[in-house]
Amino acid sequence: MVPQWIIEQKRDNRELSEEDLRAFIAAYTEGDLPDYQMAAFAMAVYFRGMTLEEITVLTDAMMRSGDILDLSAIDRPTVDKHSTGGIGDKISIPLAPLVAAAGAAVPMISGRGLGITGGTLDKLESIPGYHTQLSNVAFLDVLQRVGCSIIGQTDRLAPADKKLYALRDVTGTVPSIPLISASILSKKLAEGVDALVFDVKCGRGAFMKELSDARKLAETLVEISRTMGRRASALISDMNQPLGRAVGHTLEIAESIAVLKGEGPADVTELTIACGAEMLVLSGLCADKKSATRVMRDKIDSGEGLEVFSKMVDAQGGDPSFVEHPERLATTPVCFDVLASGDGFIDAVDADAIGRIVLLLGGGRRRNTDTIDHAVGIDNLVKVGERVAEGDPIMRLHARTREDAESVMAVALGAVLLGDAVLEPTPLVLVDSATISAELPSDRSEG
Amino acid sequence: MVPQWIIEQKRDNRELSEEDLRAFIAAYTEGDLPDYQMAAFAMAVYFRGMTLEEITVLTDAMMRSGDILDLSAIDRPTVDKHSTGGIGDKISIPLAPLVAAAGAAVPMISGRGLGITGGTLDKLESIPGYHTQLSNVAFLDVLQRVGCSIIGQTDRLAPADKKLYALRDVTGTVPSIPLISASILSKKLAEGVDALVFDVKCGRGAFMKELSDARKLAETLVEISRTMGRRASALISDMNQPLGRAVGHTLEIAESIAVLKGEGPADVTELTIACGAEMLVLSGLCADKKSATRVMRDKIDSGEGLEVFSKMVDAQGGDPSFVEHPERLATTPVCFDVLASGDGFIDAVDADAIGRIVLLLGGGRRRNTDTIDHAVGIDNLVKVGERVAEGDPIMRLHARTREDAESVMAVALGAVLLGDAVLEPTPLVLVDSATISAELPSDRSEG
Repeated sequence: MVPQWIIEQKRDNRELSEEDLRAFIAAYTEGDLPDYQMAAFAMAVYFRGMTLEEITVLTDAMMRSGDILDLSAIDRPTVDKHSTGGIGDKISIPLAPLVAAAGAAVPMISGRGLGITGGTLDKLESIPGYHTQLSNVAFLDVLQRVGCSIIGQTDRLAPADKKLYALRDVTGTVPSIPLISASILSKKLAEGVDALVFDVKCGRGAFMKELSDARKLAETLVEISRTMGRRASALISDMNQPLGRAVGHTLEIAESIAVLKGEGPADVTELTIACGAEMLVLSGLCADKKSATRVMRDKIDSGEGLEVFSKMVDAQGGDPSFVEHPERLATTPVCFDVLASGDGFIDAVDADAIGRIVLLLGGGRRRNTDTIDHAVGIDNLVKVGERVAEGDPIMRLHARTREDAESVMAVALGAVLLGDAVLEPTPLVLVDSATISAELPSDRSEG
Repeated sequence: MVPQWIIEQKRDNRELSEEDLRAFIAAYTEGDLPDYQMAAFAMAVYFRGMTLEEITVLTDAMMRSGDILDLSAIDRPTVDKHSTGGIGDKISIPLAPLVAAAGAAVPMISGRGLGITGGTLDKLESIPGYHTQLSNVAFLDVLQRVGCSIIGQTDRLAPADKKLYALRDVTGTVPSIPLISASILSKKLAEGVDALVFDVKCGRGAFMKELSDARKLAETLVEISRTMGRRASALISDMNQPLGRAVGHTLEIAESIAVLKGEGPADVTELTIACGAEMLVLSGLCADKKSATRVMRDKIDSGEGLEVFSKMVDAQGGDPSFVEHPERLATTPVCFDVLASGDGFIDAVDADAIGRIVLLLGGGRRRNTDTIDHAVGIDNLVKVGERVAEGDPIMRLHARTREDAESVMAVALGAVLLGDAVLEPTPLVLVDSATISAELPSDRSEG
């Protein structure tokens, strides 16, 4: 394997052999192939793309660069969800307990936030005592006892991806569907789950701005997962406005608990149920989406989802009394309503700007090493289509100081667009899983 | 300047500002910008290209990364030629003395061979005692006294290019016209010459296989040189068959001397005169190409070119008696005629294969650090259009051992294609300088 020949082959749009691609990734993981050759390769992939076969090999090679979890001791069907990330996306938190309550095991390995996007782990750490770093043994124990566990990525999970992702971040090679797909899948498939549901976000607050790109990514994720012997499906959901009415770590935990109590915002509840129904059908626990949707609603109404969440928090060292009383979670000294400057209907809530406000208030990381303020953020946020009168609150800022709150006022006012007429509402699920691709492999074969 | 933003800008086909591009190159030269970011950038340039403004800035920044020769003490017009390189291309060796004999100063900084392509410096080192590493002072002294000097590149000439070229070589980013142009020009313009002639090779044995690519490169080189205040012109010459009848270091010195004596092969003589005439017109020593061509022929016929060559060899420490008696240069123990396997006309002589034979015989470098055997090679090579009968010699191999010679026989036989009818001959100069671009700046302004 001569690395520059592989780079040239990709540059010249010739398909790479499995052997060459595996050797290339192996050499990179071992440190025998320098970053500059991988950077040139990644840029060539950005321009030329990859065939499904190439992405599969890349995914498999990166997945096998580290540990692969052995879930054979778990006596339920295993299933997970991956979201490409968006502002206010706390779906994982109510979703895992609800799906676990319905009989599946959900071993969820999550990430931290960076830039304007929050991370599930950071949100869970708003609950005093909650541990996100468990040993494999402890993780499997919680999974078996509770039905779900949400933890952080270890160094041994797909280390090739960790190295490649850091390189892509500084070489302008992040927005490449093959590289994004292999990055997501190498980590998710290393969880060892039988089935995977992908929630691909699309819109101003998402990585994929165009529906055509979101669809391509969704199709790629499903296709590769199936090739690698997993059941998989994907849906595309709107990310023009933030999900829910709360953005910020503690505030999103409170909103997640509200969803589990049946008191959550309609959009978060709807997407949680939609993703959960996909997971239940994929894992064979429900025959079709209609019955799976009913089961999901039942697990909210009965309080079983909330109970599983409470158990998970307890099993991971957190104080479950906060689940019962989220109002006891940390608050900020300053709460501050932003008021509408006129009458009208909400035309748009800029997800990007809302994310930026939370970052400015101290609730996000500019760098991986930054510490975050869990309590700051936004709640009571208006949604597109709602009517407001001048002086009505359009969001509430939770800030450390009055100066902090005032410093984001202009962004906050600019983030909410008022119009004269109510807009035709955009559906939350833009593309249903059924249209992404229909056939499912009859059962899992080891890839 | 945030390096990844610059990479992303190029990736997204947005033109870079002069300030950003200069900062990017400066940071790379200083070692503040890592190779992996430059590699990603170079690959983005491969796909997106560069505007003439961008190439000019890149060239200027790389040129200024090191020393720029000050030729103000030289009392003749200064001019140089650059060739993009081909098999058997020894043009520089007879050309510099002939142009010097006509009144110009030719400060030629040349390179070494790599792979199948030979280097002018290596060829000159076949002459016992010839030094290719002179101090700037000694170089200017030889130039002033003799009229020409051919030396090697120092570490202080365009170090940014040296670093970037080594990186491009291992990242699949060599074949990019903007990067090739900036690489050539940053070095050639650092010579401080008033005028430059480019001999862009095109064909199977050249870097540019397609005439359209060769033309694009030629136009870019001329355009940027002019923008940077130099007189410049370019021609495109055929590189499907090797130049001349000899390939190999010592054998090419002998052939070069033959050209200076008026006994050289027609093609080498023709191209030497064509390039020289361009140089004489550009440097203002001749009014037009017709008279310049006559001057070049005169300098061969009168022996003045040979005399200047002899003086240059002497001034650079070489033994000028070898110029008079090239037959005394080192020979190999084995000389071996390769014979035609049938009757016919020569349809093609594969320049690439001929280069490979010389490499296999020990006359080339696989790596920069390899040592080379100056005496091995090929001479008496047939030319396209010549008639041969079965058993006629088609080339003579000069090898270290009989085994070496035998090991290349199959390649040698395969390199020469016989046909039934004589082909319409391809002109040596495929595109004349007049058609590359016509206008010349009236005089030089410092860039």
